[in-house]
Amino acid sequence: MYLSSRGDEVAVVDNYFRRRACTELNREPLFHVPNLHRRAALWEAVSGVTVKVHIGDVCDYPFLLEIFQQFQPEAVVHYAEQPAAPYSMMGHKEATFTITNNLISTANVIHAVKETNIDCHIVKLGTMGVYGTPNIDIEEGYLEVEHKGRVHKFLYPKTPGSLYHLTKAQDGDMLFFYCRMWDIRVTDLNQGPVYGLETAESIQHEDLAPIFNYDDIFGTVLNRFLVQAVAGIPLTIYGQGGQTRGYLNIKDTLACVELALRHPADAGQYRVFNQFVETFSVNDLARQVQEAGREMGLDIQVQNLPNPRREAEHHYYCPRHVGLLSLGLNPHYLNRTTLQEMLSKVLHYKNHIQSELVLPKVTWQSAAI
Amino acid sequence: MYLSSRGDEVAVVDNYFRRRACTELNREPLFHVPNLHRRAALWEAVSGVTVKVHIGDVCDYPFLLEIFQQFQPEAVVHYAEQPAAPYSMMGHKEATFTITNNLISTANVIHAVKETNIDCHIVKLGTMGVYGTPNIDIEEGYLEVEHKGRVHKFLYPKTPGSLYHLTKAQDGDMLFFYCRMWDIRVTDLNQGPVYGLETAESIQHEDLAPIFNYDDIFGTVLNRFLVQAVAGIPLTIYGQGGQTRGYLNIKDTLACVELALRHPADAGQYRVFNQFVETFSVNDLARQVQEAGREMGLDIQVQNLPNPRREAEHHYYCPRHVGLLSLGLNPHYLNRTTLQEMLSKVLHYKNHIQSELVLPKVTWQSAAI
Repeated sequence: MYLSSRGDEVAVVDNYFRRRACTELNREPLFHVPNLHRRAALWEAVSGVTVKVHIGDVCDYPFLLEIFQQFQPEAVVHYAEQPAAPYSMMGHKEATFTITNNLISTANVIHAVKETNIDCHIVKLGTMGVYGTPNIDIEEGYLEVEHKGRVHKFLYPKTPGSLYHLTKAQDGDMLFFYCRMWDIRVTDLNQGPVYGLETAESIQHEDLAPIFNYDDIFGTVLNRFLVQAVAGIPLTIYGQGGQTRGYLNIKDTLACVELALRHPADAGQYRVFNQFVETFSVNDLARQVQEAGREMGLDIQVQNLPNPRREAEHHYYCPRHVGLLSLGLNPHYLNRTTLQEMLSKVLHYKNHIQSELVLPKVTWQSAAI
Repeated sequence: MYLSSRGDEVAVVDNYFRRRACTELNREPLFHVPNLHRRAALWEAVSGVTVKVHIGDVCDYPFLLEIFQQFQPEAVVHYAEQPAAPYSMMGHKEATFTITNNLISTANVIHAVKETNIDCHIVKLGTMGVYGTPNIDIEEGYLEVEHKGRVHKFLYPKTPGSLYHLTKAQDGDMLFFYCRMWDIRVTDLNQGPVYGLETAESIQHEDLAPIFNYDDIFGTVLNRFLVQAVAGIPLTIYGQGGQTRGYLNIKDTLACVELALRHPADAGQYRVFNQFVETFSVNDLARQVQEAGREMGLDIQVQNLPNPRREAEHHYYCPRHVGLLSLGLNPHYLNRTTLQEMLSKVLHYKNHIQSELVLPKVTWQSAAI
């Protein structure tokens, strides 16, 4: 919607994995989202522009290749990976699905670009989670290392904290490899957790809102806190709550994708942007939700749970993020007004909340739960 | 054979991928190798010890899990990956097979260990090729980085030179990840190119010899040179021939696997050994083969071909390799006698040589050949 309203001709591909998994695992989103054909028709009705819809699997190479051959894209935004860390840690089936889906979808996009137009710019959704929490500054993509009097510039080493995050490091390694071999053009957007329930486009109709998951598998921490605040149950902090990450508003996500597309990577360049605008610890977020809710009359408690994940709960965290700002990103920052707007939207759906969905049921430990 | 003759109870699993691919691609090895059941029976006849044979695919999880449940191994040596760099660069089909086979086989081994015995030691065949040719010393597994006054120890960053090598970096990242999450025990043997046509076990019967490929896809450089020397065609050097790698004798390969098994990694330890004993450039190898052959009356020429690969042809190369030596490895070094023994063995099969198999037919470039 964002790109099509700015004059781009857009085709979208979806295999409905996320929706299917939400249903199968009984983790339905807060509100119903119509299917993609219906959303595209609705968007055309309100905006006058057409988005082509293809339902199928990016892992099905003939299907994908035909779309490339017919549509002849100048750029492809690769959002087709299994996106949930807890899902990837559930068991053997989910682990091998995550590996296969995320790496074969990426390989297929690369080969489709090679077979149809080697200059087609690949913009891949990455994640800041690939870096983990090293004890040195996280640079933007590359790290120059001085060692025993010699110097080499490496792709920044990754220490991911879930199998999902591992596959996102592996897909980046794959894209970087084919940049070196085939001179493809790639931008990797290492995004932090996104918040926000609406964009300038989605507010034009209730049925255009982005999917909002608040459960233990597909929900992210701020969504979960908003739902807990509205449902009158304590905000659940995993462990000590010092886990610090870089966050951004969904409006900035769209702006970042557009900036990457308008300024393509060079031939052979694997360009990495760290895509977030500010960092918060989990405790910071909980406190901000409490304060924003208090003004709305919500009495919000906080509860520390044993951490189901294996991760540092207090750590150094200093990630660099200058690339997108230098291309012109004008960030939205999290503030009380934004939080209260989100709380109001969640309040609107208060009777939909299934509060049993928020508690963690997937563990990172090897022993069965 | 090596381990079973030393008192270990051994089961082997093979899906015959390599044999099938050699046949389908018309890259048959220098001499016929009987099937695994027949080789196991032959080995039992000459040695008196039994090796259990399972024919099936490590990517088939129920098949693999049942073997783990029945055999209850204390250790597993993971050799089940697609091993050829040129194969992985042939096209989409071979690329996605390499990714899926190499990563799902590894994930299945990890999950089978988790489900049956978390202390089962995984010894994975790695490759020195994952490192590429960085401009600083290649350490053994890890690299301590000082950056802006702070220090962090990373897994050594990888810059692989083929898709096959990429998957071997990715499987290592996966094993390291599950060491951190599940406290599995892993040794990764980053092996250099292996040479040698026989071991103390294989010489007990002609039909126990290791598979010997000399073609452009499955053959390694020294094998190819030996066959070219015997066939009276020039040794083909890709590009300038300054490509330097670490080599080892097949006898040392077996000794290294045994050393890793007798000294398992700790719980949660991802232990890396750089498994080679000396380094040579391609030009060094060609010269040594020439000199060894000359004494046997072979007139051996050298020919430089345009490099079908994208790789540095002159580069810094200083890889550390102390771990296996400190466990007691007693290396064999490449010398004229060894080369002449190998040349004699290849001469024995001279009439089998199909000299058209040695020229490179797979390119690393994006344009079609």
